Amino acid sequence: MGKKVDELLDAIQQKNVRLTAQLITLAEDGSSNILPTMRELYRHVGNAMIIGLTGPTGVGKSCLVDRLISAYRRAGKSVAVIAVDPSSAQTGGAILGDRIRMQEHAGDPEVFIRSMASRHHMGGLAAATGDALTILDAAGWDVVLVETVGIGQTEIEVAKAVHTCVLVLAPNTGDDMQRMKCGIMEVADIFVVNKTDMGGADLVINDLQRTVRPAGSEENQRSVVACSALRAEGIEELVAAIGEHHQYLCEHDLLRQVLQRRITNQILSIAQSRIGTMLAPVLGSSSTLEQYVKQVLKGDTDPVSAGEEIAQRLLVRRW
Amino acid sequence: MGKKVDELLDAIQQKNVRLTAQLITLAEDGSSNILPTMRELYRHVGNAMIIGLTGPTGVGKSCLVDRLISAYRRAGKSVAVIAVDPSSAQTGGAILGDRIRMQEHAGDPEVFIRSMASRHHMGGLAAATGDALTILDAAGWDVVLVETVGIGQTEIEVAKAVHTCVLVLAPNTGDDMQRMKCGIMEVADIFVVNKTDMGGADLVINDLQRTVRPAGSEENQRSVVACSALRAEGIEELVAAIGEHHQYLCEHDLLRQVLQRRITNQILSIAQSRIGTMLAPVLGSSSTLEQYVKQVLKGDTDPVSAGEEIAQRLLVRRW
Repeated sequence: MGKKVDELLDAIQQKNVRLTAQLITLAEDGSSNILPTMRELYRHVGNAMIIGLTGPTGVGKSCLVDRLISAYRRAGKSVAVIAVDPSSAQTGGAILGDRIRMQEHAGDPEVFIRSMASRHHMGGLAAATGDALTILDAAGWDVVLVETVGIGQTEIEVAKAVHTCVLVLAPNTGDDMQRMKCGIMEVADIFVVNKTDMGGADLVINDLQRTVRPAGSEENQRSVVACSALRAEGIEELVAAIGEHHQYLCEHDLLRQVLQRRITNQILSIAQSRIGTMLAPVLGSSSTLEQYVKQVLKGDTDPVSAGEEIAQRLLVRRW
Repeated sequence: MGKKVDELLDAIQQKNVRLTAQLITLAEDGSSNILPTMRELYRHVGNAMIIGLTGPTGVGKSCLVDRLISAYRRAGKSVAVIAVDPSSAQTGGAILGDRIRMQEHAGDPEVFIRSMASRHHMGGLAAATGDALTILDAAGWDVVLVETVGIGQTEIEVAKAVHTCVLVLAPNTGDDMQRMKCGIMEVADIFVVNKTDMGGADLVINDLQRTVRPAGSEENQRSVVACSALRAEGIEELVAAIGEHHQYLCEHDLLRQVLQRRITNQILSIAQSRIGTMLAPVLGSSSTLEQYVKQVLKGDTDPVSAGEEIAQRLLVRRW
């Protein structure tokens, strides 16, 4: 990029969108050149309101994101959007097609939209998204929306990196809900039932109310919002619910905790991945692995026990 | 399962399909109860001919597997099929629908068909497949066919676990080939161009011939076979090519090497996964991780450097 760190920081804080996008790409690619820049950026984070939107495909997330951009822009806030698609990371494709509907904001210099589908970042897509959040936060964007596609492990990791996680459902996603119960449902702060223009929304809303606020439970920051992104109904209520949750985090000094959790998870996933790639050559250079294979073939151990033992030997006495 | 290890071994070697399937399920689920059994089984492996079939969706792999089952049955060999579908592991679905076409073999006691879509095995789907191979090999199945769907990382890992890897392509998969170049193409031993009944097969065959046997290259065990699974054409040629490759492995004492590679990779992936889950609690109980997070927030380090450092500290002096 050729610029000094302070010049670069200055440029992205002036909303130089080209340099911002370039920096995110370098982070995605796992370029070690940007590490000095990343270090500096962490001293400037903590001002953005970071909102995650997640949920199964077909619930109208992109349309909802579009409405939220408009709502925050009307409130005078700058908005950056990151669209994370793990399945796209696998196929090497991109989901920009879906972003086309956001083009009404394309000419607005206070709106930044970006897809993430990295296969190169050492810590995986969630860690790459963490870098993008750091860049956009330090660059001074008021609101950062992270839209994820699907409800897998990456989405849960991304959900843990945001201040407020909005899970978007639709009247016809009842079947998916059962499956989600033990995952994203537990991480979500706000549950949106979108497409209230369709039939059957009340059923899902009641179901969610019971799940989110079980009888007898006290202080609970989770809420359920009904809306129709298509008809632009319920958007202000959603914005209000997000605002209330954010206010709660501020008052209880929890914003910094989210940031610390994000950094912790990034460090861990990078360490895990690095250990993963280093393990074979490190073990290979000793005769340890060979010994274990021989023992398996003799019936003295099995791959699961051998793998466990290696992990134990590595970790137990080391820290 | 309530049986003693030797009784169980005896039963699966008598082709007790119910017990065999049950054992594979326990391995998939990562049950530690079966580890003593698995240990015993490794003393009985080394007789099966293990063939992998991989390639993009829509090239007619299932139909080809069906033809291969028939061909090996005609030769008097018992055949077990494992169908591995990583995408199914993600969605929690199964690909048994596709297996329906194999039902003509369903009544044959010398044919065993099984889908793998594990999300529970500690070392992932490839390690779970390795366990299934061990079980079927020790049980005395003559031929074990492993069909994988798609061309991702799991498929490459599975391809490294078989004796002979057959990559199936079709005249219309030219676009995919470019993408495959740096992955499965390098692992494959036999390249099948299926659907020769379609136009354009010659083009793909010529293209493959050049890739597989570059001008000037000497000893090369890789071959290209054209066939039409639909019309049952070219199947004997494929069986012959697989036989020749297997013969080559036997003569050069390479079969044991494949088994050792499979065990090595299983141990490594289990160790990696175990380190992954142990890392957070182990680091969390010391103040190390907290210190790193503080340093990131002060701008003294960044998550990538911190993660690298943790991995280095763990591995470098340990072995």
